[in-house]
Amino acid sequence: MSVTSPAGFRASGVTAGIKASGKPDVALVLNDGPLSVAAGVFTENRFAAAPVLWSRQVVADHEVRAVILNSGGANACTGPEGFADTHHTAEHVAAALTGAGVEVGPGDVAVCSTGLIGERLPMDKLLAGVDAAIAALSADGGPDAAVSIMTTDTVPKTATVRTGGYAVGGMAKGAGMLAPALATMLVVVTTDAVIDAELAESALRVATSLTFDRIDSDGCMSTNDTVLLLASGASGVAPDPASFTDALTEVCADLARQLITDAEGASKDIEISVQNAATEADALMAARAVSRSNLLKCAIHGEDPNWGRILSAVGTVPAAFEPDRVDVAINDVWVCRSGGVGDSRDLVDMAGRLVRIVVDLGAGSSSATVLTNDLTADYVHENSAYST
Amino acid sequence: MSVTSPAGFRASGVTAGIKASGKPDVALVLNDGPLSVAAGVFTENRFAAAPVLWSRQVVADHEVRAVILNSGGANACTGPEGFADTHHTAEHVAAALTGAGVEVGPGDVAVCSTGLIGERLPMDKLLAGVDAAIAALSADGGPDAAVSIMTTDTVPKTATVRTGGYAVGGMAKGAGMLAPALATMLVVVTTDAVIDAELAESALRVATSLTFDRIDSDGCMSTNDTVLLLASGASGVAPDPASFTDALTEVCADLARQLITDAEGASKDIEISVQNAATEADALMAARAVSRSNLLKCAIHGEDPNWGRILSAVGTVPAAFEPDRVDVAINDVWVCRSGGVGDSRDLVDMAGRLVRIVVDLGAGSSSATVLTNDLTADYVHENSAYST
Repeated sequence: MSVTSPAGFRASGVTAGIKASGKPDVALVLNDGPLSVAAGVFTENRFAAAPVLWSRQVVADHEVRAVILNSGGANACTGPEGFADTHHTAEHVAAALTGAGVEVGPGDVAVCSTGLIGERLPMDKLLAGVDAAIAALSADGGPDAAVSIMTTDTVPKTATVRTGGYAVGGMAKGAGMLAPALATMLVVVTTDAVIDAELAESALRVATSLTFDRIDSDGCMSTNDTVLLLASGASGVAPDPASFTDALTEVCADLARQLITDAEGASKDIEISVQNAATEADALMAARAVSRSNLLKCAIHGEDPNWGRILSAVGTVPAAFEPDRVDVAINDVWVCRSGGVGDSRDLVDMAGRLVRIVVDLGAGSSSATVLTNDLTADYVHENSAYST
Repeated sequence: MSVTSPAGFRASGVTAGIKASGKPDVALVLNDGPLSVAAGVFTENRFAAAPVLWSRQVVADHEVRAVILNSGGANACTGPEGFADTHHTAEHVAAALTGAGVEVGPGDVAVCSTGLIGERLPMDKLLAGVDAAIAALSADGGPDAAVSIMTTDTVPKTATVRTGGYAVGGMAKGAGMLAPALATMLVVVTTDAVIDAELAESALRVATSLTFDRIDSDGCMSTNDTVLLLASGASGVAPDPASFTDALTEVCADLARQLITDAEGASKDIEISVQNAATEADALMAARAVSRSNLLKCAIHGEDPNWGRILSAVGTVPAAFEPDRVDVAINDVWVCRSGGVGDSRDLVDMAGRLVRIVVDLGAGSSSATVLTNDLTADYVHENSAYST
């Protein structure tokens, strides 16, 4: 049920003809309240797309009633005209919803787009799609919405957690940062918990920092990444802030793992845990460096427990550690001890899809885990052949 | 002629049996003087290999008489035993040279190794190879030496510049940082110019910062990268510091370009020039970010002028620029103007091997160029299949 699992939400997904493939390409999520609390996290890319620039403003007051999303075009690097297109879309959504008896102002309509950079959206098709999406709104429309935001995704991604009398539901598309310019990460998470703007903001920051910020398929930062949280309050339950943050984090972690597993061309999921670091920031820095090593990602594709490539990545970061105190395990075999040769690499079984790497820095007691995937010929093919 | 182009040098390359392939694997470069001035630049990786730790000490006094190099094993992450192996190798070279009538102390013998990380070298074979290399030393042995340091290189790399009565010659192996753990960048450059330690050091810093530091195949920093400059003074010519630096830079640039062109699996050479930046550091930062985008490198492999992937990489760096003032050209076609759509991408001809990307930040008058290559299925294959 995804974004419509929590009470107080309707959603839909329709085919507007933006995608050449004829697959669904416009989704709408509507918060029927009684609350319309929201928070958002956006890409830090300085070439942020028009819908990101717009939605940042919309979310600034922590009030959002509707989110309109399209695949088939990112509306990025499209200049003032592209921004006007986004603005016009939000106005159209607000007017059409109001005409349908749901009074909404354009300043409460967030917009998300995903697809190729540098091309204007076909506005006639998009606006007709908006009308169709409003007509199709339904309290069980979450799955349709999740399908309509797919680009190179092979499966729709949804998640739900029910706890303490309220629900958190979400949908996501994209393959982490791995996705090309036409497949960015878009996430909408809904809840019927009664929360205020402050909790929405803080919980979303915590949840994304532990989940979406810790998946890294190919180190490429998109122009359109957006994560939105909408709260309807329809359950009437005001949860403890910590337990709400946990539930939200659980939904985000579920979606994040689905993104990595469906990453373009991936044949292995790689979990990189750095432990016994002096600080969590050190652990994260080292784990990220490992996750971005093309050489390591190729080795894992070839089921080669090449721990030298792990050390050479760790060796590029300024985290606190002594090289001769670093241990590395691959799938529980400590192939590197004290910065040198450890147990036999022949003991490592890499046949499964999940590969677990543990780097022990021996410098403290903090840890962090980053998820990534292998680098494959299929990735190269998919990203060299797409827009030609 | 490479390292033996300048007067005062002898070199050799022999087959010691370290490589399973039976190809040449030990090289020796000897400076017969009268000077033995030297300088070195080494990897910044914190897991620097034993030969790097050793050679850094050897070069510290700016005196080097001989360089012994082996392929077939990196002697990295091999602990104190690995360092003892390097030390022992240098002592053996010094003793054997002294026995052959060339008095050399072990503290003037630099050692370079390249190959798989985490394995000890077969010392019996290596030391026998040292003896053979000493016996084979010759004033025209440069080409043999260049062949003996190859790993995944498909061709030996040498370069020579003659100017103002002196010569600068060099040899290199590796594929920039693209090379896997078994193929690091090793470079030895020789000259018969009369230079002092100060000029050797400053000229080498300038030359490497403009050349080897500006090639980036896959962003992976090796444990063994070493660039050594040896000066014999045998020409009797004491050049102007600026012109010597220029000649040295020319040789290094030639070798750097050969490294990128021979990068593993590459089908395109990519030249990324960032111009009109506020500072050279800004230009370099932006160019490096572009050079590390897997998505862009895949697109170029597919001859897809996907400028959105260039902007999204530039958008990740804190260089001074306004997104709506950035222009991008691919092979002279300005496909992006003012951060948006420019001339038609259909005008871009990417059939040739060289692809020139120009990013104009419109923020000043500084510029920098980084060389890289495309990301191909062959790269994935070569780096996933090597050590298995």
